[in-house]
Amino acid sequence: MDNFKYKNNKLFCDGVSVEKIAQKYGTPFYLYSQKHLVDRFRDIDNAFSKVDHLVCFSVKTNSNLTILRTLVKLGAGLDIVSVGELFRALKAGCSPQKIVYAGVGKRPDEIKYAIKSDILLFNVESLSEFEMINKISLKLKKKIKVALRINPDVDAKTHKYITTGKKENKFGIDIVTASKIFYSSVGAVALNRPKKYKYIDLVGIHLHIGSQITLVEPYVEAVKKTLAFIDEFKIDIQFFNIGGGFGIEYSDKDKPKTPDQFANKILPLLGVRKYKIIMEPGRYVAGNSGVLITKVNYIKENLSKKKFAICDAAMNDLIRPSLYNAYHQILPVVKRNGKKQCYDVVGPICETGDFFGKDRKLTEVKQNDLLAVKSAGAYGFAMSGNYNSRPRCAEIMIVKGKAQVIRKRETLEDLVRGE
Amino acid sequence: MDNFKYKNNKLFCDGVSVEKIAQKYGTPFYLYSQKHLVDRFRDIDNAFSKVDHLVCFSVKTNSNLTILRTLVKLGAGLDIVSVGELFRALKAGCSPQKIVYAGVGKRPDEIKYAIKSDILLFNVESLSEFEMINKISLKLKKKIKVALRINPDVDAKTHKYITTGKKENKFGIDIVTASKIFYSSVGAVALNRPKKYKYIDLVGIHLHIGSQITLVEPYVEAVKKTLAFIDEFKIDIQFFNIGGGFGIEYSDKDKPKTPDQFANKILPLLGVRKYKIIMEPGRYVAGNSGVLITKVNYIKENLSKKKFAICDAAMNDLIRPSLYNAYHQILPVVKRNGKKQCYDVVGPICETGDFFGKDRKLTEVKQNDLLAVKSAGAYGFAMSGNYNSRPRCAEIMIVKGKAQVIRKRETLEDLVRGE
Repeated sequence: MDNFKYKNNKLFCDGVSVEKIAQKYGTPFYLYSQKHLVDRFRDIDNAFSKVDHLVCFSVKTNSNLTILRTLVKLGAGLDIVSVGELFRALKAGCSPQKIVYAGVGKRPDEIKYAIKSDILLFNVESLSEFEMINKISLKLKKKIKVALRINPDVDAKTHKYITTGKKENKFGIDIVTASKIFYSSVGAVALNRPKKYKYIDLVGIHLHIGSQITLVEPYVEAVKKTLAFIDEFKIDIQFFNIGGGFGIEYSDKDKPKTPDQFANKILPLLGVRKYKIIMEPGRYVAGNSGVLITKVNYIKENLSKKKFAICDAAMNDLIRPSLYNAYHQILPVVKRNGKKQCYDVVGPICETGDFFGKDRKLTEVKQNDLLAVKSAGAYGFAMSGNYNSRPRCAEIMIVKGKAQVIRKRETLEDLVRGE
Repeated sequence: MDNFKYKNNKLFCDGVSVEKIAQKYGTPFYLYSQKHLVDRFRDIDNAFSKVDHLVCFSVKTNSNLTILRTLVKLGAGLDIVSVGELFRALKAGCSPQKIVYAGVGKRPDEIKYAIKSDILLFNVESLSEFEMINKISLKLKKKIKVALRINPDVDAKTHKYITTGKKENKFGIDIVTASKIFYSSVGAVALNRPKKYKYIDLVGIHLHIGSQITLVEPYVEAVKKTLAFIDEFKIDIQFFNIGGGFGIEYSDKDKPKTPDQFANKILPLLGVRKYKIIMEPGRYVAGNSGVLITKVNYIKENLSKKKFAICDAAMNDLIRPSLYNAYHQILPVVKRNGKKQCYDVVGPICETGDFFGKDRKLTEVKQNDLLAVKSAGAYGFAMSGNYNSRPRCAEIMIVKGKAQVIRKRETLEDLVRGE
């Protein structure tokens, strides 16, 4: 599942002792395996190697510059959703012609920056956004390519907060409206395009039905529906962006399909079409690349014999358990022998919602023990904040057998910057 | 309910046009009324004026330095939960002898900093923390006062994430263990205190049963239980900290009791006791002092006629709706006439969980309209982050009829600091 393995009862990441990293840099911190990132990116890249394709890593899952650079060097494009992510993408050395830009609420200044930067494609989420992009391209006198994000009304069978392809969601354009855009004067298939639209090229279709999808079927259904739409309306496109959402193992119970399995089901659907296939994986690449390492500050037992392991990391560092009730495996960094006991693994924040895991069976946990909260590489640091005036933790990556700080721990002075 | 009022259909804060502030500083931003902060602080201060008391504002609800300074100048103490909050409290000019420090996971370095800073009191949450504080005070050869936080096992009838006084929560010390601490060699009532404990003074009891409590009864029950405990064990204390949690109006349906009503029920319970009463209000003081002002980037309607107002603020700015399913009233900054329609008011973040309100009845909302998300002064900016690489928004306060930036909008460069 990941590159965090025990050797003589001690946890190692790509051959480096996690305990030693903690001793050197203090806790809490995120720890990533560069090797895992590379391997998972290649899984997808290889699975789709039979067709012309571009794997755009989803920056919102983990936007650390070193992580982006790692993937960009392998040939990855980047999937962005804001001007902040565009800024990061360019800083990481990504070619603008490998950047695709999604999101329902792109501001005019964001669109302007992206057109000026000469990105590959906008994934357009509404007619009014299409008009806005056109207006700005006209003003800048600069050509820009766009894809329409179709909402295929498919249930991705995932958490309600991260399902995005159902008709009641805010995302994408329904098929009826999309066909109108393609055929109206603004669209690519339109016979007479007025000069007003001369800078905008409608060249693609985009799909994204949600995140942490472990089944192939919703994907297949969405692609089929979209291809039927393309055929029915004889729509001519160059880019077919099938989005991201490939699920990962958070526990042994999760049995996500592999990229090969996805590719084997999806590619045959395309037949002889010569589209460039774009994918936007994030969690699949980064999720199990990282863990959150935390120290136990106190063990507390209450009258009803409930035991709490109170950690130095908190919901401000990793909010997924609290926000999505997400399951993250929790492991000791140094394994102890003995009978398993039941713990709530919690943070120090003054909220009952501040927890990493409830009723977890662990061999005895003691004060100052280190714990690893697993599968924290995606939507981990990216969603962190400073609640309870807690400086954000460090990010460390194992690069060729060496621990490298890829984001410094914030200081107290950082907390009040700008006030 | 707050200081945001319409004048000729336009929203004003303490006489200043919200629209004009938006024009000058851009959106999104938090906007606070200093006057509201002052008035609400005085409500509580006055309600308890008959007894020796100290109102310690809960820094975790809103830790902006200007807000802390405003309250400190009125005589407020501060209730902190981390070294970051201690840093802020001291920077805001708070006397250390008005600072109380709670939290289940205080690290040794945090305890050291607090003892050295000569704070008034630690609220101790476990025996092991008591031992840790003692150990450090001994090392520093510096006296320190502590209170035990009692877990009274009372249901505060609020959101499960913010109820903190039930026996299954991680907070506080059960009454049996507390009595043992008071009577063991470490405690204040102990007959023979060994030299080992000569620097630690157990002088108080602390209670905090949760947040957004709108009823007096759970409070009364907790205080009664605790006083019975004090009497039964003949415990001698100087400080009785009744915590915070006074609720506010998020909507017209909320009918929270006033500080006067709380005081009238609680103070008689104390009888002739000469305790110094400490209170830790946060939300009551700051909650309705602030709103989040956002611009509508797009209006989107899907096939099922569902309308979305897509804002430029998002869950990274205000996570309460997403995290607690919290209700925040949403109002137009400029009122329009006409029939009300139904909107989901959402942010631009690529998550279905990114919303401020669902199915809200508003008169027609158009692109570029400004909206005010109310009751955002507590647990608003304090819980914000940079998800989707979004720089955090500005904070602005109306001070004596003038808008004053109390925290600058973050820049793109701020996003990558430390990487």
